[in-house]
Amino acid sequence: MRLVTFDDGKGARLGALTASGIRDLGPRTMMDAIADTSGLLAACEKASVVTEAKLLAPLPRTPKNIFCVGKNYHEHAKEFAGSGFDGGAKDVVPPFPVVFSKPHTSVIAHGEPILSALDPTGGLDYEGELAVVIGVGGRGIRKADALSHVFGYTIVNDVTARHLQKRHSQWILGKGLDSFCPMGPAILTADAVPDPAELTLTTWVNGQRRQHAPVRDLIFDIPTLIEAISAGITLEPGDVIATGTPAGVGIGFDPPVFLQPGDVVRIEVPGIGVLENPVA
Amino acid sequence: MRLVTFDDGKGARLGALTASGIRDLGPRTMMDAIADTSGLLAACEKASVVTEAKLLAPLPRTPKNIFCVGKNYHEHAKEFAGSGFDGGAKDVVPPFPVVFSKPHTSVIAHGEPILSALDPTGGLDYEGELAVVIGVGGRGIRKADALSHVFGYTIVNDVTARHLQKRHSQWILGKGLDSFCPMGPAILTADAVPDPAELTLTTWVNGQRRQHAPVRDLIFDIPTLIEAISAGITLEPGDVIATGTPAGVGIGFDPPVFLQPGDVVRIEVPGIGVLENPVA
Repeated sequence: MRLVTFDDGKGARLGALTASGIRDLGPRTMMDAIADTSGLLAACEKASVVTEAKLLAPLPRTPKNIFCVGKNYHEHAKEFAGSGFDGGAKDVVPPFPVVFSKPHTSVIAHGEPILSALDPTGGLDYEGELAVVIGVGGRGIRKADALSHVFGYTIVNDVTARHLQKRHSQWILGKGLDSFCPMGPAILTADAVPDPAELTLTTWVNGQRRQHAPVRDLIFDIPTLIEAISAGITLEPGDVIATGTPAGVGIGFDPPVFLQPGDVVRIEVPGIGVLENPVA
Repeated sequence: MRLVTFDDGKGARLGALTASGIRDLGPRTMMDAIADTSGLLAACEKASVVTEAKLLAPLPRTPKNIFCVGKNYHEHAKEFAGSGFDGGAKDVVPPFPVVFSKPHTSVIAHGEPILSALDPTGGLDYEGELAVVIGVGGRGIRKADALSHVFGYTIVNDVTARHLQKRHSQWILGKGLDSFCPMGPAILTADAVPDPAELTLTTWVNGQRRQHAPVRDLIFDIPTLIEAISAGITLEPGDVIATGTPAGVGIGFDPPVFLQPGDVVRIEVPGIGVLENPVA
């Protein structure tokens, strides 16, 4: 199933994206669905199609800041190292996962604008990423069990102000700004994804293809990330892990090509859908 | 006022720490008090003293991960640079604030144990810090207005697994582990603190004084931190900013002196109180 959060004027509620449109699974929310997945399919069959609805981010308010992984595709790690924007890092390919976070206030929905004015340094960049939504929480989750803790998969744009990312050395002030975490359009539930490594991600800017990679190319795969993060941190239902971006971001060009107002960033993972956001 | 969150068996509720003990301001919570500060003093005068209560962290669940500031006292920035644990940083004293985060799952109360077993690398360290609790939220808060956005002040121990901090390069996996954010014992409301720079912080390990500094020594002071973080990120009521630690942490010794099970870390800021946690 492809689950969405929408607002038809009566507040945020759960829906299923089907061939006939959004089916109303409310008054449940996405967090309710994550807490109890039973009865969703049956509810969907009986549900009516919504005529007017605004799509929200599938998880507008995650329990913790969204976990994000840096430098997790080989070719991107190289382009980042070569760009000069990676502060003092010694290793091109990190020996251990590089994890930071973005607060829920950075999350916006498909279609909502990325606020370029919040980066006064003019270094706005995109990072198309597959993101994992945790279903069953826990600490000390082992790699072999990790996928059974996944509720589903969505898309995140890890929007970055490159000069701020470098300036502040730790990345939350360059990556956690309001509107810098487009998320959506839907969460594809894990039962529809036997192996997330089979998914592919493509990013376009103004119709020009910039990123295209199979999730199989991740340096630290999804089970490894879940094991590494949950080793010391209790993961909770609804926590989100953005898994990293492939090569082809703006600082991969020489000179770098930054996003400008009017640009449109479109990220697609077949099965999940298309996450498209204009730059304002 | 010194406000606390306590549990007398009926769930978390708000209290005021007075000479006669904890006065019960429930059924309010700390988040309620932050949202509406009116009537607190009057309520305190009428409130009964609680006989049996377990002290909880004053804010067990912050809206976002707790913001933390690294390398924000000159002498600590030097000891950190000299320790070899600061990955690839080029600058001893950072030209811009270094900000990272710890999730709410890392928060524990005064008296609760720090779980050393979660750091399998044996590099457990303490960092006593003054923390700011946001009252009135906002984005683009100017330095001159910043203190009017502060609800109060508390103490945080920014517990760190040094080898994990270095390994993962971004700091959440070395600093955000469960139990790695002791917070409390109370929030001293801002009306009692005309100038937070006048506060002083002292840390002892097993009775030995390790850190002692006036908050005036901060490289980036509290108004500057609020301006820098809120420049792009909307701060919300109840958000917490830990302002950084002075010199005297375990890696400031040569060779480093790491925390061991059985150790007790005690941090005091006169006016706020004492935050003491054993290492388990």
